[in-house]
Amino acid sequence: MSNNNNDIPVSPLKIIPLGGLEQIGMNITAFEYEDSIIIVDCGLAFPQDDMYGIDLVIPDVTYIRDNYDKLKGFVITHGHEDHIGSIAYVLAQVSAPVYATNLTMGLIEHKLEEYDREHAAAGVSLMETVRRKVITFGQSINLGCFRIEFIRTNHSIVDAAALAIYSPVGCVVHTGDFKVDYTPVYGDAIDLQRFAEIGKKGVLALLCDSTNADRPGFTPSEKTLAPIFDNLFTENKNSRIFVATFASNVDRVQQIINSACRAGRKVAVEGRSMVNIIDTAQRLERIMIPENTLVSLDDMKDIAPDKQVIITTGSQGESMAALSRMADGTHKKITIGAGDMVIFSSHPIPGNEKPVTRIINQLLQKGANVVFQDVHVSGHACQEEIKLIYSLVQPKYSVPVHGEYKHLKAHAAIAAELGIPKDHIKILNSGDVLELTQDSAEVTGTVPVGDILVDGSGVGDVGNVVLRDRQRLAADGIIIVCMSITSEGQLIAGPDIVTRGFVYVKESEDLIGEATDIARSAAEKSIDNGSDWNGIKTSVRDAISDFVWKNLKRKPMILPIIEEV
Amino acid sequence: MSNNNNDIPVSPLKIIPLGGLEQIGMNITAFEYEDSIIIVDCGLAFPQDDMYGIDLVIPDVTYIRDNYDKLKGFVITHGHEDHIGSIAYVLAQVSAPVYATNLTMGLIEHKLEEYDREHAAAGVSLMETVRRKVITFGQSINLGCFRIEFIRTNHSIVDAAALAIYSPVGCVVHTGDFKVDYTPVYGDAIDLQRFAEIGKKGVLALLCDSTNADRPGFTPSEKTLAPIFDNLFTENKNSRIFVATFASNVDRVQQIINSACRAGRKVAVEGRSMVNIIDTAQRLERIMIPENTLVSLDDMKDIAPDKQVIITTGSQGESMAALSRMADGTHKKITIGAGDMVIFSSHPIPGNEKPVTRIINQLLQKGANVVFQDVHVSGHACQEEIKLIYSLVQPKYSVPVHGEYKHLKAHAAIAAELGIPKDHIKILNSGDVLELTQDSAEVTGTVPVGDILVDGSGVGDVGNVVLRDRQRLAADGIIIVCMSITSEGQLIAGPDIVTRGFVYVKESEDLIGEATDIARSAAEKSIDNGSDWNGIKTSVRDAISDFVWKNLKRKPMILPIIEEV
Repeated sequence: MSNNNNDIPVSPLKIIPLGGLEQIGMNITAFEYEDSIIIVDCGLAFPQDDMYGIDLVIPDVTYIRDNYDKLKGFVITHGHEDHIGSIAYVLAQVSAPVYATNLTMGLIEHKLEEYDREHAAAGVSLMETVRRKVITFGQSINLGCFRIEFIRTNHSIVDAAALAIYSPVGCVVHTGDFKVDYTPVYGDAIDLQRFAEIGKKGVLALLCDSTNADRPGFTPSEKTLAPIFDNLFTENKNSRIFVATFASNVDRVQQIINSACRAGRKVAVEGRSMVNIIDTAQRLERIMIPENTLVSLDDMKDIAPDKQVIITTGSQGESMAALSRMADGTHKKITIGAGDMVIFSSHPIPGNEKPVTRIINQLLQKGANVVFQDVHVSGHACQEEIKLIYSLVQPKYSVPVHGEYKHLKAHAAIAAELGIPKDHIKILNSGDVLELTQDSAEVTGTVPVGDILVDGSGVGDVGNVVLRDRQRLAADGIIIVCMSITSEGQLIAGPDIVTRGFVYVKESEDLIGEATDIARSAAEKSIDNGSDWNGIKTSVRDAISDFVWKNLKRKPMILPIIEEV
Repeated sequence: MSNNNNDIPVSPLKIIPLGGLEQIGMNITAFEYEDSIIIVDCGLAFPQDDMYGIDLVIPDVTYIRDNYDKLKGFVITHGHEDHIGSIAYVLAQVSAPVYATNLTMGLIEHKLEEYDREHAAAGVSLMETVRRKVITFGQSINLGCFRIEFIRTNHSIVDAAALAIYSPVGCVVHTGDFKVDYTPVYGDAIDLQRFAEIGKKGVLALLCDSTNADRPGFTPSEKTLAPIFDNLFTENKNSRIFVATFASNVDRVQQIINSACRAGRKVAVEGRSMVNIIDTAQRLERIMIPENTLVSLDDMKDIAPDKQVIITTGSQGESMAALSRMADGTHKKITIGAGDMVIFSSHPIPGNEKPVTRIINQLLQKGANVVFQDVHVSGHACQEEIKLIYSLVQPKYSVPVHGEYKHLKAHAAIAAELGIPKDHIKILNSGDVLELTQDSAEVTGTVPVGDILVDGSGVGDVGNVVLRDRQRLAADGIIIVCMSITSEGQLIAGPDIVTRGFVYVKESEDLIGEATDIARSAAEKSIDNGSDWNGIKTSVRDAISDFVWKNLKRKPMILPIIEEV
């Protein structure tokens, strides 16, 4: 009963961001109309600084599971981690067909294969069970009551798509992550004509990338970097050259290879994630590498240093990435030193400034020549590009997406400047249910969302309590007080004190000795008072806690353990 | 026998940076000539990200202690933490007279009083035992074979000085941290004439601030901010206004107060460190606050919001600072919300971008209006100012100081561009001994240096082993396996497994149960084989370690404890 007899839909279209509790990262959004749900993107987030030991964060998909009978499929805009990173974990819970463009699907399949390998013992095979369809630009798919059209855009990974999502209440355009690049390295420029055509027919709402909404002007074309690489390669013609960039930036790698070829140099690619992506891109013909250009790191040994270019991961200062290991001498095959040239073709992602600076300082101290400015362009639209999309699409409602809150606010200011009424601009929090009709847009409620923490192969077995313990252990360590007490209440061994992460034990023998005496008298007094095991533990904990605070102004975790013998 | 009969000094002047193992922070430099040592500055560093639980880092002063008979005094350039922060700790080990300008000495005395209070029980009184002399600009002091002249500069704290250090081999100029401000808020502009005069007479070496050596142009005057504050106050005349800035930037606070007065607003200062510094500056007449302007936060309750300005610490996103607490609702007296205006008069110090952004997002989400760009000027010289100092001083040798390695390299490039031969430019590492004669400058050796970690009231009782344990505890938590074994080798209680920071115990009961069985059989097998306590512990640790890695791909710390009963 989606339509009444006047052909006016009576149900609203619901748009629900499901991407965890934090505003940033983890793109996953439900579009729901009556008995149909589609999910746009399925990303992961990287852990916050205080999430000790956590490898990655994936979304809680309780809402999808609770409405599994409505789920028609996953529609993916492009192949970056924050858009595809949780797809294997999520499909393992709520399987449905997946739709994406060529390279995007290649990268998704790599994730499914990896997941299958890790869960082979349990007989899982996402590759066999999940239906997948590669979509070309301009093509549409029907999923329940939705029709979804893939529109070509430009971004820092090839095959990025915007989506026109046609629903009974109207068309919603989702830009995905995009920039306007009139001269892209691979493929065509963003299909601005199609944005205009769809806009002309009437667009209910625009969900548009906000990442660079606080930057004026236009993001330069990826191709503007070609002469910069050429110049750097010419000016440093006697050096071995290293270029660090994002593993997924296939176009960037293409340009580095092009410049290397022009300079008569061989190229090696180093870093697991980059090798994976370049392999996939090569197989899918998204990167063109001239014959006899790519060599292995091993084969580089036979090539003169000034005929080498090594493209590597680690541009964000990641301590385990290839660049860090080549800089600090822990890489098995190669060490960067005096006379080498290192180009950072990247900007530090906010929060990574310190590790990036640390590795730059390290490389400079080793005598390498380091270039870390102006060899990068962004993959996201700046203010003028955002305005261009609005003027083509002319949406009735604006929903800023993708970015921190300050970027969403900057985006909202642009939309307002373009004449969209303030109450037609909706900044959503995760879990908000935005209900859209032909003439209204309201947040009417929320659904459960959350962050699932992945640590090693454990998914969701680390939560706030465990994290708080880790934070406390990190800050001041642990003091364990072990005692053996008979069931009659006689202390027959201990208390013995063992500490970790607390103080140098050798230089603190007196302190530990005194603490042991304090623990003993607290335990004995408590036993004499007829306390139970918990009472004894509490009095030992309190006594040690007071003692340590008085002496050291620290609050280590204190863990009394009683063995009943 | 410093001179031979031709009056040519035969000993070299030694310059030895003692500031720990890291290049950044912690300024403390020894100048040594024969039997005289003076120490310039005595700073602290803030802990690296992986120094869990550490509050601050101070220098290892073994070298000063080993040469204590030569020590003539401490000469301090200005009152920032990275220049005075460790002075109480260091004076408690190697007492000597302290020389500094007015405000600098006020802030040093505050540190000594604080230290005395904390160590009152031990009968320590640095205030009574350490001789202190306030120096005015242009004044010189004689310390052993050195004469030291204080020269007025400008910086982001008032009373900043450069030093001309006259030694038997020649004059060395140390700029301290400086900028050229022709129109400073308090006091006079940098004494460029004196730099020129000293230069004219011949300067052997220049130690010059490198912080902004990678930035072209000139740093703007502090006074350029006055119209910016006035405009912001006028444009937001209906809002309560908060301004976050550095606690020590007395001139900035002066300007905010000036603009507040012009706008007819009362001012409160919040945040312990800022209150301390403003109190000291007021007492020493380094800040002029018109009567009836400053009120307490409590009294602000009776003042209309649009007549308030609250100047606060926390501009670096520090979670415990006043701004964070006012933003997240944990401040006792005041909460920032809709309609409030928050001005960040600061730039994030590298590494603090993420916490600063987090608090900006938080404030925006609460509905506050936030301005965080272009309301700050640096306190350090840019490239053209550095060139100006070189052209006035015209040193024979250049020693870039103060900055990360990349800044020292950028500074070295400027010196080279100005015509100083490359082998006359010396980038020093901590502990390097630079020997200067009238016609040579060579690093001839090293002295021991190091980082002393301060955690709570413990100084130096946390080192690499404890830190590594904390890192491991943070990453994966701890599993404690407790057993009671008789001296005859009978396992009579346990093994009991207790974990912290590892997994949710309730949801992992099976795992813990299985681990307990594994621990028991490992222990029993080991006992049967006649192992000693250490052997038993090792086999339990290995068995649990394997089990956890296989199941969870994690490496928690595993700590078997045997109680002998």
